[in-house]
Amino acid sequence: MSKIEKLRGFKDYYPEDMQKREQIFSIMRETARNFGFLPIDYPSIELLEIYKIKSGDELLKQTYNFRDKSNREVTLIPEATPSTMRMLVARKDLIKPVKWYNIPKLWRYEEPQSGRNREHYQFNVDYFGETGVEVDVEVIALACETLDRLGLKNMYTVRINDRNLMEKILTKIGSQNIPSSISVIDHFRKESVESIKEKLAREGINGENLEKFIEFLSRSYPLSDIDEAFDKIGLELLNDRDYKEMRSELQSIYDKGYENVVYDPSTVRGLSYYTGIVFEGFDNEGKFRSIFGGGRYDRLSSLFEGQETPAVGFGMGDAVLENLLREKGLWQVENTEVSYFVIGMGKEGKKRAGNILYDLRRMKKTASMENSDRNISNSLKHASSMNFSHAIIVGEKELKENSITVKNLNSGEQKMLSLNNLSEL
Amino acid sequence: MSKIEKLRGFKDYYPEDMQKREQIFSIMRETARNFGFLPIDYPSIELLEIYKIKSGDELLKQTYNFRDKSNREVTLIPEATPSTMRMLVARKDLIKPVKWYNIPKLWRYEEPQSGRNREHYQFNVDYFGETGVEVDVEVIALACETLDRLGLKNMYTVRINDRNLMEKILTKIGSQNIPSSISVIDHFRKESVESIKEKLAREGINGENLEKFIEFLSRSYPLSDIDEAFDKIGLELLNDRDYKEMRSELQSIYDKGYENVVYDPSTVRGLSYYTGIVFEGFDNEGKFRSIFGGGRYDRLSSLFEGQETPAVGFGMGDAVLENLLREKGLWQVENTEVSYFVIGMGKEGKKRAGNILYDLRRMKKTASMENSDRNISNSLKHASSMNFSHAIIVGEKELKENSITVKNLNSGEQKMLSLNNLSEL
Repeated sequence: MSKIEKLRGFKDYYPEDMQKREQIFSIMRETARNFGFLPIDYPSIELLEIYKIKSGDELLKQTYNFRDKSNREVTLIPEATPSTMRMLVARKDLIKPVKWYNIPKLWRYEEPQSGRNREHYQFNVDYFGETGVEVDVEVIALACETLDRLGLKNMYTVRINDRNLMEKILTKIGSQNIPSSISVIDHFRKESVESIKEKLAREGINGENLEKFIEFLSRSYPLSDIDEAFDKIGLELLNDRDYKEMRSELQSIYDKGYENVVYDPSTVRGLSYYTGIVFEGFDNEGKFRSIFGGGRYDRLSSLFEGQETPAVGFGMGDAVLENLLREKGLWQVENTEVSYFVIGMGKEGKKRAGNILYDLRRMKKTASMENSDRNISNSLKHASSMNFSHAIIVGEKELKENSITVKNLNSGEQKMLSLNNLSEL
Repeated sequence: MSKIEKLRGFKDYYPEDMQKREQIFSIMRETARNFGFLPIDYPSIELLEIYKIKSGDELLKQTYNFRDKSNREVTLIPEATPSTMRMLVARKDLIKPVKWYNIPKLWRYEEPQSGRNREHYQFNVDYFGETGVEVDVEVIALACETLDRLGLKNMYTVRINDRNLMEKILTKIGSQNIPSSISVIDHFRKESVESIKEKLAREGINGENLEKFIEFLSRSYPLSDIDEAFDKIGLELLNDRDYKEMRSELQSIYDKGYENVVYDPSTVRGLSYYTGIVFEGFDNEGKFRSIFGGGRYDRLSSLFEGQETPAVGFGMGDAVLENLLREKGLWQVENTEVSYFVIGMGKEGKKRAGNILYDLRRMKKTASMENSDRNISNSLKHASSMNFSHAIIVGEKELKENSITVKNLNSGEQKMLSLNNLSEL
C-alpha cells in the first residue's frame, strides 16, 4: 500500500541489526570515555544560517532545509561541527582542554548510494583548547582504537597530511592560488591524471615541478619512506617545522601501536577551514569511502565569536562502518545472552510463574513468560524459536515442592532448583 | 551574535547533564531487555500521509512538516507508533509475540513550556500479537519497573481505565455519541466541572445519571475501593467481563510489587484508536504532566494492512522525567568513576607517560595526559579541577626505577607502583 511507504534513502533497523548497532555505539562511547572525552548533545534542527558560516553553497544544496511554521529558515543538521562550535562559544566557564564526543543523527539530501543514506549517525569527536603533536595524536589514536575494538585491527590505513606543509609545497612549486590548488588535489583519486595535470598547470605549476609533484602525489608513504620522498621532490623541506611536526605525529601514532599510518600528499580534505593536520581512514582494500576523516581547524571558532580556539576532531559515519563490518563478517553478534522463558501449567502454575518472572527481572535477568495456551511441548518449541537459552517450568510437581525445573534449550539438560535458590540461576 | 542562535524550544546538553541522560537511557534499555523486549529503530522523517491514518488534523498542525527537494510532503516524526506499525506490517516472517522498544527523537511544533520542548526523546514500547490480562500487565509493569530503577519508587501513581468498560458505562447512562463523550471526559481535569456537566448534558447524559457520573469521575479508586464505587454508580457492572478484566489487571500489577495503581474513570486518553486498557503515570504530587501513557490498540494495524494485530504499548518522554528527577534531587550523578591524569616530567618522562596512557586505555580505564607545559603543582591542580580521581606522575626518579607514582587526588595519599604491576591499578 502506498500510504505506508518508507522514504527512499532511509533505513529501518530490526532487532537482528540493532543488536550490532548498539554494540558499535557502546564501543564508541566507552572508547571516547577511556580517552577522557565527555558526551554532549544538541538539537537536530538549527537555523540554516549557521552552516553558511563555514560551508559553501554545495552543502546548502544538500540539506533538508525548510521554513518552519514561524517562517524561519531552518535545516536538519547535515554535520556536527557548527552545533558543537555553537555550544562551545556559548560557555565561557569551561576549563580547557574541552574534550567532547557525540553520536548525532545527520541528514543530507543527496542521491542514495552504497555507504551513503539520506540519514546516518556519526561518531563525532572534538578536542578544544590545546595544540601540539600529542593533541593531534590523541584524536587520531581514538579513531584507530575505536576501529581496533570493533575488530578491524590491521584492516584499515590512516592517511595523514598537513595543510600548512601542503601550502608550502604548493607555493614553492609555483601555485598562484592555494585554496584552488587544494581543491584540485582533493580530486586526485577521482579524476584522470591528465585532467589533474591540466588543472594544476592552470594554477601555475609547470614543467619539471609539475612532473615531480604528480609523481609525489601518486602514492602514499610509510614512516620509513617519507624522508626519501621529500628529498626526491627537492624543495628543501626536510628541516621545515611543519614537515618535522607531521613526521613526529606519524612516529607517535606508530609508537602507540597504531601501525597502519602513512603520509599521503593527496589527502587534503576539501573544506577550506582546516589549518594543520588532516587525515582520513580507509579500508586496506580500498573498497569503500573513507571510514573517518578530520583535522585541525583552529580558526573556525573565530567565525563564530571573534576569538580563535585550537580545535582538532574527526567524524566517523555508521554507514561505511556497517558495510565494512559486514564485508569482514563482523556484523553478526553471537547471541551468548542467558534468557529465560517461564512456563506455568494450570492456573496456580501460571500464578507462581508470574512471580518467578518478576523475581528474575529484578535480578536483572532477561525473562519472558508463556502467555498463550500452548501445551508444554509447543511452549518449549516456541521458546527455542524465540532464541531463549533456558526454559523454566512450573508444573504440579514443582508447585508442590516449591521448586522449578530449569531446562537448557541448547543442550537439552534439565535440573530442579528450589525456589529459595533462585539467585543461583 | 544572532548568527549562532539556538532555536527556541530546543535544548543543548552539556556533559554535566548528559551523564544523567545516558544513565536514564541505559536503564530504559536494560529494563526493556530484562522484560524480553528487543530494540528497533526507524527514520526521523516519514511521509506526512502515514500520520493521517491514525491522527486528526490537530496533530498535523503541530508537526514539523515540509516539502522535500522532490516535492514530497514529509514530516519529522511527531510520534513513534505509525513508524513502528509500518515496520511491523512490512515483515510477515516475525514470530509472535513481537516485543519491541526504541528511544527515538520526536518533534512537535507547539508552544514550548515546562516539560514540553519542540524536540524530545521518548522511550517507546510495544507488545504485538497476544492479548489478555497478563500481556497488558507486562507493558504497564515495564513502565513501573523503569521508574523504580530510576529511583522513583512510591513517587508515582498509575491511573488505569478500560475503553470498553467506559463505553458500556456511557451507553448505559444515555450518551448519544461515545467518541465525543470520551473527548469531553478527556478534559475532565483541565476544565471546570460546570463546563464538563454542560457538555455531557449535550451528549444526552442528564439528571441523576449525570450527578452520579460526575461524582464517579471526580476521584480515583485503589483496588480496595473499586467494587464499592461500581456498586454506588449502580449500573450492574460488577459481573461484567470488562469490569472483571480491569479489576484483575489492577490486582495483578499490585501483586507484582507495583502498588501505586488505581482505577481512574477520567483517564480515557483522547486518541480514538484505543480498544481496551488505557493508562497514564503521574507524579504523586500532581506537579507535572503525565510521565508515561499508553493502552491497547488492536485495530490500528488494520488501517495499515487490512489485518488486525493485538497491540499494547506506552510512550515515556524524557522531558517530564527530567523535571521530576530534578525535583526529587535525583538528577545529579555522583561521579564515582576512577580516572587517571598522567603527568610526565621532561622529555623522557613525557614519552614514558604517553606509553602508560595508552596501556591504561587498552585496559579500558579512563585516562588523559598533561599536554601543556605547566609545572607539576599546577598540573595536579588542573587534574583536580577536571575531576580526575587519580594522578600518575612519571618524573626522573620513576623513570630510573621503572615505576610510577599514583596520587589519589581526593585523599592526597600516594604510592609508588612498579610498571610491571600496572594491572594492579
